[in-house]
Amino acid sequence: MTIRMFDLCGRDADRPFSPYCWRTRMALAHKGLAVESVPWRFIEKDRLAFANATTVPVIVDGDNIVADSWKIALYLDDRYRDAPSLLGDAASTSAMLFIRQWADRVLHFALLRIVVLDIYKSLDEANQPYFRESREKRLGTTLEKFVEGQDAHLARLNEVLAPARAVVAGQPYFGGESPSYADYIVFGAFQWARAVSPTKLLAQDDAMHAWRGRMLGLYDGLAGKAAGYPV
Amino acid sequence: MTIRMFDLCGRDADRPFSPYCWRTRMALAHKGLAVESVPWRFIEKDRLAFANATTVPVIVDGDNIVADSWKIALYLDDRYRDAPSLLGDAASTSAMLFIRQWADRVLHFALLRIVVLDIYKSLDEANQPYFRESREKRLGTTLEKFVEGQDAHLARLNEVLAPARAVVAGQPYFGGESPSYADYIVFGAFQWARAVSPTKLLAQDDAMHAWRGRMLGLYDGLAGKAAGYPV
Repeated sequence: MTIRMFDLCGRDADRPFSPYCWRTRMALAHKGLAVESVPWRFIEKDRLAFANATTVPVIVDGDNIVADSWKIALYLDDRYRDAPSLLGDAASTSAMLFIRQWADRVLHFALLRIVVLDIYKSLDEANQPYFRESREKRLGTTLEKFVEGQDAHLARLNEVLAPARAVVAGQPYFGGESPSYADYIVFGAFQWARAVSPTKLLAQDDAMHAWRGRMLGLYDGLAGKAAGYPV
Repeated sequence: MTIRMFDLCGRDADRPFSPYCWRTRMALAHKGLAVESVPWRFIEKDRLAFANATTVPVIVDGDNIVADSWKIALYLDDRYRDAPSLLGDAASTSAMLFIRQWADRVLHFALLRIVVLDIYKSLDEANQPYFRESREKRLGTTLEKFVEGQDAHLARLNEVLAPARAVVAGQPYFGGESPSYADYIVFGAFQWARAVSPTKLLAQDDAMHAWRGRMLGLYDGLAGKAAGYPV
């Protein structure tokens, strides 16, 4: 049975950009599960009421409804035990939980300083006011001011990536020889940027650049074929 | 058979302070292995030549000699498979490798801005010139200037700890319900500070404070009984 996934998009329904939805999209492919994407936009909170959610991803798998990318990963490992594990055992899941907290708080914030205005521009007119108002309140400044000084923000992003870079300089994936959910956590952030922003984030000779290339090619190029700017 | 471990100390041989040695000390206790500590100081490189090493920890386990805390953790899991695992499977080990890189690069640097002069002061006269010269070259400034503005450095440390704090706010250990090597990686940094510096790093109501308290109590209070300042 095909799993339905509510996926964040902007003006263009074929350009999903949520880092959390990309985690789930890659996780579903990792499990070998078929998925039907349901385009969803920020202001359509009512459409997620059935899942007691206000944000995506939300998946509908037969009678099971699961919201939140982390909970979805736990659900998929529990429900599809014979498929390759995403999170591993308790110690492994906990170690990936640290990577998740790092990505959510540190990596995403560093990227937001580069892409938040591009996200705004990618939205349709009905969603732009909601996005501007909610984000400016959260950031304490205008979107325009928040992204001012791109050179410094790019330098900061590359500084923030130091621990991640050190890992994939020594092995192909955050999961080791093959990808784990840790890879999808970090990769989601880059797909978010790729969907909306023409900014080149990584140098060609950066180990993170090579890793992202491997990620874009996984599962028959699932992520690489998605709409986005050249990286 | 008792494992011998070369352990970094300063003037006081009973006050081991290396964050890497503390990782190994906790890992040995996790495995239930007896250890005999061999005090070692920075300038005694010759004493580690037998292990092809210039830094500690180095362990001697019968005929096996292993240097580097990460390699020691891998060795202990391989050699003592029946004892509780430190790193778990490949995906788990890789996820902990990220935590290691984060601790080595981000957490340690933030702590160094608070404790590096205290480390210097804790060394004997023979080691102080080596430490000052090598660290000032690496840091590009004097030890005194590097620690100036402690309030900002403490604030920065607490900002850097955000992803770690979010993990242990929701569960007892970085390993989940029980400690894994991820805990020893993060904890080593706090034992480093505790051994040499009177500075209070964490607020009483911080989830990291409670976690550190649990860590100090593990293995019959191994770390809490070690020489150090009140935390």
